[in-house]
Amino acid sequence: MIANSTVYADGHRLHVDAKADDLTGIRKAVDAGQPGEFVSIGLHEPDQAEMARVAKVFDLHRLAVEDSLHPVQRPKVETYGDMVFLVLKTLWYVKESDKVEGGQVALFMGHDYVITVRQGAGFDLEGVRHDLEAQPDVLGQGPAAVVYAVCDRIVDVYQRIVSALEDDVDKVEAAVFSPKPADTSKRIYELNRDLGTLRRAIDPLRGPMEQFAHAEIKGVSTDVAPFFRDVADHLARVSDAVNSLGNMLSGAFDADQSRIGVQQNNDMRRMSAWAAIFAVITVFAGIYGMNFTNMPELKWSFGYPLLLVVMLVISVVLYRKFKKSGWL
Amino acid sequence: MIANSTVYADGHRLHVDAKADDLTGIRKAVDAGQPGEFVSIGLHEPDQAEMARVAKVFDLHRLAVEDSLHPVQRPKVETYGDMVFLVLKTLWYVKESDKVEGGQVALFMGHDYVITVRQGAGFDLEGVRHDLEAQPDVLGQGPAAVVYAVCDRIVDVYQRIVSALEDDVDKVEAAVFSPKPADTSKRIYELNRDLGTLRRAIDPLRGPMEQFAHAEIKGVSTDVAPFFRDVADHLARVSDAVNSLGNMLSGAFDADQSRIGVQQNNDMRRMSAWAAIFAVITVFAGIYGMNFTNMPELKWSFGYPLLLVVMLVISVVLYRKFKKSGWL
Amino acid sequence: MIANSTVYADGHRLHVDAKADDLTGIRKAVDAGQPGEFVSIGLHEPDQAEMARVAKVFDLHRLAVEDSLHPVQRPKVETYGDMVFLVLKTLWYVKESDKVEGGQVALFMGHDYVITVRQGAGFDLEGVRHDLEAQPDVLGQGPAAVVYAVCDRIVDVYQRIVSALEDDVDKVEAAVFSPKPADTSKRIYELNRDLGTLRRAIDPLRGPMEQFAHAEIKGVSTDVAPFFRDVADHLARVSDAVNSLGNMLSGAFDADQSRIGVQQNNDMRRMSAWAAIFAVITVFAGIYGMNFTNMPELKWSFGYPLLLVVMLVISVVLYRKFKKSGWL
Amino acid sequence: MIANSTVYADGHRLHVDAKADDLTGIRKAVDAGQPGEFVSIGLHEPDQAEMARVAKVFDLHRLAVEDSLHPVQRPKVETYGDMVFLVLKTLWYVKESDKVEGGQVALFMGHDYVITVRQGAGFDLEGVRHDLEAQPDVLGQGPAAVVYAVCDRIVDVYQRIVSALEDDVDKVEAAVFSPKPADTSKRIYELNRDLGTLRRAIDPLRGPMEQFAHAEIKGVSTDVAPFFRDVADHLARVSDAVNSLGNMLSGAFDADQSRIGVQQNNDMRRMSAWAAIFAVITVFAGIYGMNFTNMPELKWSFGYPLLLVVMLVISVVLYRKFKKSGWL
Amino acid sequence: MIANSTVYADGHRLHVDAKADDLTGIRKAVDAGQPGEFVSIGLHEPDQAEMARVAKVFDLHRLAVEDSLHPVQRPKVETYGDMVFLVLKTLWYVKESDKVEGGQVALFMGHDYVITVRQGAGFDLEGVRHDLEAQPDVLGQGPAAVVYAVCDRIVDVYQRIVSALEDDVDKVEAAVFSPKPADTSKRIYELNRDLGTLRRAIDPLRGPMEQFAHAEIKGVSTDVAPFFRDVADHLARVSDAVNSLGNMLSGAFDADQSRIGVQQNNDMRRMSAWAAIFAVITVFAGIYGMNFTNMPELKWSFGYPLLLVVMLVISVVLYRKFKKSGWL
Repeated sequence: MIANSTVYADGHRLHVDAKADDLTGIRKAVDAGQPGEFVSIGLHEPDQAEMARVAKVFDLHRLAVEDSLHPVQRPKVETYGDMVFLVLKTLWYVKESDKVEGGQVALFMGHDYVITVRQGAGFDLEGVRHDLEAQPDVLGQGPAAVVYAVCDRIVDVYQRIVSALEDDVDKVEAAVFSPKPADTSKRIYELNRDLGTLRRAIDPLRGPMEQFAHAEIKGVSTDVAPFFRDVADHLARVSDAVNSLGNMLSGAFDADQSRIGVQQNNDMRRMSAWAAIFAVITVFAGIYGMNFTNMPELKWSFGYPLLLVVMLVISVVLYRKFKKSGWL
Repeated sequence: MIANSTVYADGHRLHVDAKADDLTGIRKAVDAGQPGEFVSIGLHEPDQAEMARVAKVFDLHRLAVEDSLHPVQRPKVETYGDMVFLVLKTLWYVKESDKVEGGQVALFMGHDYVITVRQGAGFDLEGVRHDLEAQPDVLGQGPAAVVYAVCDRIVDVYQRIVSALEDDVDKVEAAVFSPKPADTSKRIYELNRDLGTLRRAIDPLRGPMEQFAHAEIKGVSTDVAPFFRDVADHLARVSDAVNSLGNMLSGAFDADQSRIGVQQNNDMRRMSAWAAIFAVITVFAGIYGMNFTNMPELKWSFGYPLLLVVMLVISVVLYRKFKKSGWL
Repeated sequence: MIANSTVYADGHRLHVDAKADDLTGIRKAVDAGQPGEFVSIGLHEPDQAEMARVAKVFDLHRLAVEDSLHPVQRPKVETYGDMVFLVLKTLWYVKESDKVEGGQVALFMGHDYVITVRQGAGFDLEGVRHDLEAQPDVLGQGPAAVVYAVCDRIVDVYQRIVSALEDDVDKVEAAVFSPKPADTSKRIYELNRDLGTLRRAIDPLRGPMEQFAHAEIKGVSTDVAPFFRDVADHLARVSDAVNSLGNMLSGAFDADQSRIGVQQNNDMRRMSAWAAIFAVITVFAGIYGMNFTNMPELKWSFGYPLLLVVMLVISVVLYRKFKKSGWL
Repeated sequence: MIANSTVYADGHRLHVDAKADDLTGIRKAVDAGQPGEFVSIGLHEPDQAEMARVAKVFDLHRLAVEDSLHPVQRPKVETYGDMVFLVLKTLWYVKESDKVEGGQVALFMGHDYVITVRQGAGFDLEGVRHDLEAQPDVLGQGPAAVVYAVCDRIVDVYQRIVSALEDDVDKVEAAVFSPKPADTSKRIYELNRDLGTLRRAIDPLRGPMEQFAHAEIKGVSTDVAPFFRDVADHLARVSDAVNSLGNMLSGAFDADQSRIGVQQNNDMRRMSAWAAIFAVITVFAGIYGMNFTNMPELKWSFGYPLLLVVMLVISVVLYRKFKKSGWL
Repeated sequence: MIANSTVYADGHRLHVDAKADDLTGIRKAVDAGQPGEFVSIGLHEPDQAEMARVAKVFDLHRLAVEDSLHPVQRPKVETYGDMVFLVLKTLWYVKESDKVEGGQVALFMGHDYVITVRQGAGFDLEGVRHDLEAQPDVLGQGPAAVVYAVCDRIVDVYQRIVSALEDDVDKVEAAVFSPKPADTSKRIYELNRDLGTLRRAIDPLRGPMEQFAHAEIKGVSTDVAPFFRDVADHLARVSDAVNSLGNMLSGAFDADQSRIGVQQNNDMRRMSAWAAIFAVITVFAGIYGMNFTNMPELKWSFGYPLLLVVMLVISVVLYRKFKKSGWL
């Protein structure tokens, strides 16, 4: 679906008569217009045929077109002659399942056009367009400005996901160090999986963003490069935060394991202490339950109460001893 | 065994009179033909003598010929004068044993010939040839097109194996977090071994594929390079996926260990709680089993039922207490 | 808040009539002054408007200004035309919570100005200024000298924090190897988190400091570069110390785990040994508590004392045996 | 001991009159001979004096000579003027002790000589010489051919050791996953130590071999370089195999730990189940062993057999329940 | 304290009239002397004033002087104009505490002087001087020869410390695999800490030594470079050995953990087996201790001995069964 197509010149939106779907007309209008004019086209999950029409009008390379349609691509930048092709992963946090899911945005950037192909939900291209139109100085930089705006927004979303994961990690940390420890292993596993998803989106993108930031990409001027440097910087920060969360999770897991071990040791000591006390009483009861004819104590009238007292005294002494040594 | 030998020109199959085995004739025909003509020869597990004949006709270096015959080679690309020699590992997933097995494809690429030497089963070279003949624009790029087609197919198979392993890892994950945990350590070990096999096929191939993708290899034009860039890209994705699976397995293993620990702790607490209840009853029974002459309780007519009630009350109280503290 | 603004020339403070807040006047005075004159301005948590005024007078890039106001930046150096922009993280150790907290210092360095924007508490910019004014030879190097002085002070604070953490790690180590082991897992987790905070401040700063040290930054002469080399060197040392502390913590954690395991094993052996001794006595008592009519031992007059002696002897023998084998 | 000294020309052995020990004579003969003539000298654990004489005749650098005599050197290549000095580690597998031991081969390569100094047993230099003399095309490449032959043989031995270790790792793997697990920790430790020995021999050699393979070493022509590329390739494969074995061992160790944990849990459950069954019987026996005057059940004539039946029924019910829940 | 000051020319010691402390005089004498003359000055823990005098005479940079006085520096090489400044860590092994301690040697190397500033004990500079004076060919290389001799000696000491640690690791290994395992966790921790101290001395020194070895340092000729290559090589070997020891310790720790687990499992099985045997006897004794009126077995005259036989038979059967299954 072609979501929108707009012609810009000198940082402002032009009112062209061409209909949104008349791509050939739009391209002709831009070609006939002044230098600095360019068209921005946004597509959302286009079908094969739609994409083929766009590819024909803008002469896009068949391998890039295929990549834009199949959302399993990893982030990358590629140059086909004059055209730059950029793939980014969009991510969103699904509250219900506490899981990070992902889509893809592919960008074709030529000297007078920029085409955005979005796969999957969760990314507000419309909002990007509006924000950008409010900054004519940035938009005046041409197609690269649109690419910047998309990248900036996507990395902003990464940042927000990382913040949400930071909250989750804090919860895990609190659970590990609470006096009543819960089983955190599943939660830690899930969060590690989410951090992995983030890493796969972020890490391969850092190279391309650095290339944009150093104006090593065709169509990226030194005026627009600082904006990409800003994005690259955000990306580096997000990557740092992801690694830091990974370390915290790993630390929390280790601490949890350690606590389980200490807990088990304490439980075993408590159990052993009680077992010892009961065992002593049982031994006494066993001895005086024997049927020997000649057991003088059994005949003592105070034998039974005396034994009860002895049992109690021994129990209390043992209890105190275990209490003192920390077993109880 | 020489599986086939075909002469191509301008992206189309030529009908040459030379028999499949008459290599000298074929080579002469290509030499006499127009520029752009080249011969593609496919061999399957040739013996020493057969390979020696091929090597003589096409003047192949003896070290490369040896490598093509011994399937323990690791992936690599090498240049011998005008000839480029490429080794890839073929892999296949054996359903019965849930194991990844491997063979080898070696490619000799000259300016007018490409020779494919396959060792082991599991790779459909015939299919590659048919697909390629259906794309005259690609095939018209010369011998490099055949090399591309073989690489593309092999990497596609890697992708399929990774998908199969992803299913296996999902099963392990489900087993770990199921309420009735099974012993997953053997399965995790096997999957890690399979991932290792994949890594040994994939990682050393990435360098060579990048060289092809950047047209740094003799005989690879800038027109055919983007196709290799596509393969290199697939390879990077497969490599990412393998690493990601490795991390998930490692996370699943840790979670499993943690669960075993928690489980053991819970079992020990439950056991200890029951032991405590029984111990108390046993102590009472032991005491009233003693043979003291003077034990007034024994003479009480309601002594026995009273003690049974006391035993029951203490048991219930202890049971509730343990239930409340989570030991039962 | 503009904390101070000072004009320097040839390493000495000039008495300019301009008020601290009259930035335009100050800049004009410097422009009209001799070469080598420069102004140093210090701001503490300025608001948007204040910063905008400063940015206008010194023509600062909007992206750098934004970064100076938002203290989540990671350390970095960036060049905007003639202006160099440097971000550092300030850190301080909060004794009450045993936690490392952080702020930010951003520096704008031009050929005749240096602007310091501080976010958060814990860094004594005033002290830096006084120290620097006492070293006219350094201060005479121009704006880079001020940047050096700020970096030097910040890295000094890192060093002091590392020293404090070293004390904490020593305490953890002592706790792990004390005869009465405490639960150190929480403390180890917290210290690892603090080391992570330090790493995030230190590691990304090393690249920029090396650039300063090699005079690769505009405005840094080869005369002032050795001073930055000194800072870079300190930074490397602090980084080494942080890694070393991390390794020690990790080693202490492993040793702790090992000790818990050994402890548990010893406890279990002691418990088992006592259980064995009690079990043997209980078996004897049980046998002679049976009600068979024909049990001749029961009729022996010395039966009971004999059994008591037997029980004692067996207990002593078992006790010695367990003592010898290290179970008791 | 000078094991042999041979003069070669154009790939063939010359019959020179010089005695094996008359080095000065041999060198003169080679100097007077045709271009392409060179002498190959092999020494086995020479003493200081012997080596000094060789060094004098061929003008070897004193530091290289020292290195050739002290077999603790790590693999390296060094250039002293026109002479190239190469050190390799020889390894052999001692069947009796299942341990990898090591020696050293040092090579001095000049434009008309190659000197091999061997320390330790386990490497058949004689065999290398015979094989090489059977390949005149290789030997005709001059001293570098001898260096190639030695390197090739040494790396071949590495390969054979790795194969032997692969068998050992397979045995460990089988032991870990056998139903009757043995204590594999010592074997895993020893194998890891052997892999470490291999790594120390292999990894520092890869750089030098790559230099030879790229003809970056004086005296290595582009004709002989492919042979070194072959060696470098073998070395890479051996290194891969060593890393792969390391991973498998580490995986086997983890699996073993996991199995021990699972095993312990199962043992504890089985033990607890039996303890519960016995405890219930003991409680009943204890109750009816009490001496209350008024215990009507004791007077029932069917009391005893009834209780036995009750005990049996409870035992069977408990046994089934534990069997069903997997504790027994 | 100025330990000594000596003037050398062409590899020999000159008898200059200047007193050891008359630095100005010495420097003048060297300046007036022939090319190739240089002065070597050794200081041991000089105070601020002493060092200031030296710095004035030889015009040393203030940052380098500060570094030479404060022994917390990490190894490094720095160039200040014509002067090269090198810092090394000296280490020594304190037998009493089994601990590695450290000091510092700083070297200032100019074209006609070399100044050695030593902090801390444990390094025999005098010995270095004597050894060097015995090698006129090396000493004739000028100040770099002195630097070489110091580096060589320090790295030799590293080697000796590593040998001592290797013995300690062997002891730990033996303790882990001895039949009576001791608690090795503290020893492993301490050895890891010592290896860390070594790594901090060695690893940052490798870069500077490589620079010396490749004659990239002012004042290091290609004639003296091979000597530094020798030192760099020793350093690499020591570094390898340290890493190898680290791996062995880590492997020993893992093996130890595994053994503790196996041991605990075995203990638990043995304990459970005995508990089962006792439990069976106790159950029988309990049953025949019941007071039912109608228990015919109690009246049998052979009842008691029969039961004793039954108990014995069951115990033996159980014992054999447990023995066979490896629990006892």
